[in-house]
This record gives sequence, C-alpha cells and structure tokens, in this order.
Amino acid sequence: MSDTRELLCELLQLFYDRGWVSGTGGGICAVDAPGRLLLAPTGVHKERVRPDDFFVVNPATGAVLEHPPDATLRPSECGDIFRAIIAARGAGSVVHSHALSAVLACDDAEDAIVIERLEMLKGIPGLANTDRHLVPVVDNTAREPELTADVERVLGDERFAQSHAIGVRDHGAYLWGADPWEAKKHAEVYHYLFEAVRARRGGSP
Amino acid sequence: MSDTRELLCELLQLFYDRGWVSGTGGGICAVDAPGRLLLAPTGVHKERVRPDDFFVVNPATGAVLEHPPDATLRPSECGDIFRAIIAARGAGSVVHSHALSAVLACDDAEDAIVIERLEMLKGIPGLANTDRHLVPVVDNTAREPELTADVERVLGDERFAQSHAIGVRDHGAYLWGADPWEAKKHAEVYHYLFEAVRARRGGSP
Amino acid sequence: MSDTRELLCELLQLFYDRGWVSGTGGGICAVDAPGRLLLAPTGVHKERVRPDDFFVVNPATGAVLEHPPDATLRPSECGDIFRAIIAARGAGSVVHSHALSAVLACDDAEDAIVIERLEMLKGIPGLANTDRHLVPVVDNTAREPELTADVERVLGDERFAQSHAIGVRDHGAYLWGADPWEAKKHAEVYHYLFEAVRARRGGSP
Amino acid sequence: MSDTRELLCELLQLFYDRGWVSGTGGGICAVDAPGRLLLAPTGVHKERVRPDDFFVVNPATGAVLEHPPDATLRPSECGDIFRAIIAARGAGSVVHSHALSAVLACDDAEDAIVIERLEMLKGIPGLANTDRHLVPVVDNTAREPELTADVERVLGDERFAQSHAIGVRDHGAYLWGADPWEAKKHAEVYHYLFEAVRARRGGSP
Repeated sequence: MSDTRELLCELLQLFYDRGWVSGTGGGICAVDAPGRLLLAPTGVHKERVRPDDFFVVNPATGAVLEHPPDATLRPSECGDIFRAIIAARGAGSVVHSHALSAVLACDDAEDAIVIERLEMLKGIPGLANTDRHLVPVVDNTAREPELTADVERVLGDERFAQSHAIGVRDHGAYLWGADPWEAKKHAEVYHYLFEAVRARRGGSP
Repeated sequence: MSDTRELLCELLQLFYDRGWVSGTGGGICAVDAPGRLLLAPTGVHKERVRPDDFFVVNPATGAVLEHPPDATLRPSECGDIFRAIIAARGAGSVVHSHALSAVLACDDAEDAIVIERLEMLKGIPGLANTDRHLVPVVDNTAREPELTADVERVLGDERFAQSHAIGVRDHGAYLWGADPWEAKKHAEVYHYLFEAVRARRGGSP
Repeated sequence: MSDTRELLCELLQLFYDRGWVSGTGGGICAVDAPGRLLLAPTGVHKERVRPDDFFVVNPATGAVLEHPPDATLRPSECGDIFRAIIAARGAGSVVHSHALSAVLACDDAEDAIVIERLEMLKGIPGLANTDRHLVPVVDNTAREPELTADVERVLGDERFAQSHAIGVRDHGAYLWGADPWEAKKHAEVYHYLFEAVRARRGGSP
Repeated sequence: MSDTRELLCELLQLFYDRGWVSGTGGGICAVDAPGRLLLAPTGVHKERVRPDDFFVVNPATGAVLEHPPDATLRPSECGDIFRAIIAARGAGSVVHSHALSAVLACDDAEDAIVIERLEMLKGIPGLANTDRHLVPVVDNTAREPELTADVERVLGDERFAQSHAIGVRDHGAYLWGADPWEAKKHAEVYHYLFEAVRARRGGSP
C-alpha cells in the first residue's frame, strides 16, 4: 500500500471536516508513479474512502489500469477534468471541492473571481500580495465530463496562467498542486481567498 | 448488537458536532430488519445515545416490540412522523434535524423552499442540477405528533414527489433515505442546500 | 474523585470547542453534595481544568471548604452570582458563557432578549413553542461580583420567572439547570436561541 | 526535547483548527531559555510541525544558534518582527495569525482597530472592560521583514502602549504574551475581539 493512498484518505477526511466534500461530493487524485494516477471512487462518502478504494488510471489515456477490490466502486466522474489539468499544468494532484464558499465566490463573478490585497496570495507559486489574481469561472454542465472542453479552454487562456484553481458556477472548484501536499496547501489558500472575497462584498465569510 | 445500532449512534454524534441535534433535540430511526424499526429515545443528549438505548417499533403500527434496558427512556416523539415517511416513500432511515439553517430556510419560504442552480441537487435521487427543486414546508404545531397530518398531506402532493426532505417552520426538517448511509448523504446535501439558499438571499450561510 | 468533577471538566472542554469559554473566560459550578459546591478556578485555560482543580464552597455562605492542591489557583469571580442563582432558583449547576452570540443578542435587546416562534424553546422547562420568552439582560459592571445585585433583581422579576438564563451586556450569559447535564442542555438551547434571534434580525448566526 | 517545543506544536495544531495558520501561513516563537528563541520553520504545514523542527535563534541578534535536523527547513520570515516585539515589550512568545477575522477587522480600520464595550478586554493585562482599546494597524509590504520598521514604530507609539497585538492590513496580526500560555490566551482574546468588532459593524463574526 503506497503512502500516497494513505495521505489521500487523510486529506479527504480533512476536507470533509471543512465541508468541502460533503454529501458524497467532491474528489481527489494524485500521480503515484509515472503513468499511474490514483483516482478516488464516485458516489461514496468521501471521508470513509480507504487506501485500497482507489482506481489506478493511465493519466494520458484515462484507461483504468487497476480496479479496487470492491467491485461496486466506479471511478470518479472528475477523471477527464483531472487529466486535462495534469496535462496542461503538470499537476501531480488535483482536488475537486463542493465548498459553498466556492459557489458563492462564483455567484459574484463574471468570467473570473478577482482576488487582490491579500497576503495569502503568496501561497500560490509566482504570486505577490500586490497582484490582482484571476481565477477562471466556467459554467456548470449537466454532467461533469462535459465540463472538460471549457476547462481546457481556460487552462489555455493567458489571463489565467498563474491560477492553480478553476471555479465552476453553482458547483464548486478544482484546485491543484505539484503533489498532494501542495494541493492541500493550495486548497486551503483558495478556500480562504474565496471566503475573503465574499466577506469583503458584504456577505458572510 | 446489530451494526445498524452502532451506525445510528455514530451518526447522532456526527450530527451533534454539526449542530443539527443539540440541546437533546432531533432524532433518528432506521429499519433494522423487516417489521423492526430502531427508534432513538426522546429528551436525551443525542450524542450520548448508546446502541442498546433504541426502542424496536413495528413500523406499520407503532407498537413497541422491545424496550431498551434503561427503563427511564421513552421513545422519540417523532415516531408517528417517521412511520408516515416510511409508509409513503419506502424510506429505510429518517433523520430529524433542529439545524438553524433549516429554520432560516423555512423563514424565507411560503409553502416550499425553492432550490435551483446547484450541483449538489444531484445528490438527491432523480434530480439534475438544472432542476428547480421544491422542499415542502409545514407549519409547526404544539406537539410533534400533531404534525403528522400535514406531513402526510405534503408527502402526497405531486409537486413534492422528488423531495427527500420536509421543512417544519420554526423547528427544523425531516430528511430520509433508503438506509442510514443514504439518510446521512441526504442530510448533508439538504443542509448544504439550506445554507446556500440562505446565503444567496443575503443572509449568512 | 467524584464523577461530577470529571463531568465538569468534560463540559468545559466541550464549551471551549464551541467558543463559549475561550481566552480563559467563562466558568462553571455544580452542587456535588448537600452543602458542597464545586467551583472552577478563575484565570485559567478552561479546557485544561482538571478534576482536582475545583474549589469546594459552601453554597449558602461562599466560604471555601476545600482548596485544590494547586496553591496558585483562585476561585472563580462568578462565585457570588452562581450562589445567587442557586439560592433563587434551586439550580444545581450554573454555566458562565462568554459566547459572542450572547453578546450580540444582548446588543439588540433593551432589558430582555425576546425569543419566539422556535421549537427549541421546548428545551426549557415549562415553555411551549408558542410562548414569547424573555431572557433578562443586565448591564455589565467593572467587576463580576458587582453584578450580583442586578442578577438578584432580575431573578425576582415575575416577567423572567421562566428563564433559565441571564444575559450580561457586552459580556455573555449565565445559564443553569438542575444538574450539570441539564445545565449543558440549557446552554445548548440558549446559545442556539441567541444565534437564531441574531440571524433573524439580519445579522449572522 | 523541551516541553516548550511540544507545547508550540500543540498550539500550532490548535490554531490551525481555528483557521489562523492555514495554507502553511502564520507562525510562532517562544523564548525557551535566556538567549535561546525557538522559531518555527517557514513554508510548511504548520499543524504538522514537530518538536525538533524549530530553529534556535539568538533573540538579540537573530543569529541561528541551532538548525533543525531536517536540512530542508528554513527559519520563519517573521523572525525580525518577532524579535522586535520581544525587544520592545519583553514578550516571551509571539504568534503570527493569518485569520480572516483579523484581515476583516483591519479592513474597517484607519490606523487602529477600536475595541470597546466588551468584557473580553479584561483578558489583556491592564485593561478594564470600560476602556477604549486601540490595536495598531500597519500596511502590508511585499516581504515580511520589510514590515519591521512599521512594527517598531507602532510599538513605540504611546497610544498603543497597552496593546498586545498589531494588525497587518490584508494580512493578519501579531499577538504576544509573557510565555506561550499567555500568548495563547491573548490570541484567543484578540480573535474574539476582531470577530466582535466585525459583527457589530453588520458583517459576519
């Protein structure tokens, strides 16, 4: 059993406690070794996922290399989006959050959440606290894989080159890093930023 | 001791930590076997309920089949409503929440909480994120069993055929699923939706 | 070591986790046996209080009957108020909360917090959910013992005969019950009610 | 291994759970013995810091006396500010918080957060609940050490002689006490005060 699997389970529990993956929503993946992407199952209570519940997927093709022993499990619907982010940004781990703070930050946004005047921006690689940082927002679709084209579009948009997150309207956000530890860091940073943006507009944090 | 009893105790602790069953309020039940409904006691600190504290009730008649060893315990006042929901919807587990978010969502509602534009709607069977979902709201009564007629009325109302929750004004909500795990999922989904509705109206989530 | 001492420590930890006794504020007492009142020390981190840290006080006179082994400890400044509540209402346990929700509920009040249209009112003995319940609010003073006269005045006011709580403006609240378990229940009920009152006025819960 | 190191790790976990040091932000230091300042590392998940991860620094000069065994660790960027506060106020422990409540309290402030009419003020040495207490606010800078001159300026300002905290706009706050236990107490008191100030202005606590 790889340490990465244990860590992903621990992070899912942590994210659950913060309300980011409640109601079986949300998800996580991480590259465990070259060509091997660990992908959480869909439709399960995320804080209860165990190390051997992950699928192993080819990050280039999406082909399932190994099924978990529990035959009732199906791979996360986020798989295509996760792989698009890995391909475009070299991410090693991607988190999908259903946090209400992400939904509310998207509510107030046109095509981007605008974040500025916050020290916490320095938690994202390459950013200074004096930057005006743009997180792209894509519209929600009926099924998660249908988001992939829009996700790929904003990943290629120069305005969003610094962003390590994509907001999905009425839905939540994708957040990523070079490995699970950096994905955790960025998830904490962005959720804080989403809450700050909302609180400064007069809503609740 | 059945696993179901252990699980219900774990869920009560979890719901308590979220503020849904504080001050001895709220409750839970689950069908443990055909004709045997486990029913939590009333008026006790819900996070302290132990596996042998449940009553076993006939879900069709409400007759108590087995008393818990602790003779001071009395069965939940929610029993009639729980049984009405089981009869009308085939639920296997029902949760009664006193969450403030449910009360506030009902405050803003006429005869239904209107929920739309939220991915989390997909956490309820048969719903799409593009649906306009209606959760019925009934007025509170002096004693909980008096709610039963209104609960039965909205359970039979075609507009609410998809709902797995009923709001009770100034009081909280009933939420259910096919078994305790689905009831937990639906409880998390609906509390999130109640908070979202409130936050979008300008109140706090 | 009495079970009551263990329970009071557990409750202080629980109240700390909810933000009711942070920054060494707040306090608790309970009658352990006739003529013996357990009183928490002042100025210490309340979540770290241990069973042998309590003073034993004569509830009628306030005389210290037993000092804790730790000679640096001093008895809670709430002692006189706790004893006034015990004398007037026959309380067996009193909690002093510094919760922000209590302060904010007092901010909006004249001489009483008005609570109505909430099922949670039934958590207080003798109340129905149709009642209009009044929690008295007294003005803060420079030192806690100086509050005693005002506390005694509102305890004798017929309008507040049903209340198991007293709000202190800019400060917090006293809450009580027949024993520590009922004091815990009433503390949970009243903090919920304070949050509800605030949320309904348009502030945050 | 000194007890102080264990305590600092416990406090970082506690502060993380409250959202004060998320996303690897924030920090802590404490004088462990005369001439020996324990300083947390920068850029790490603060809730995961272990006792042997601290640097030992000369509080007068900032010279590193001992490196932690983990050679990848670098000392906190807060070191100069921590030492300025120790030098000016005789603090034995300083906390750096990234709490959103501190940022929002600074948002509403000109050169000081004004706190009054709150019993919790008595949690700060020398303050009465009738005081009008001023916490200085300095503007943020591109890099943390550049804050030092402004921090020294407000530490020398007679108006702020009573304050055990400095707010940093868009960033957070520094908070201190005579030792780690008092620093914990003051951190809890000031975060409560920041939330109260915000809530009273109509925002969320």
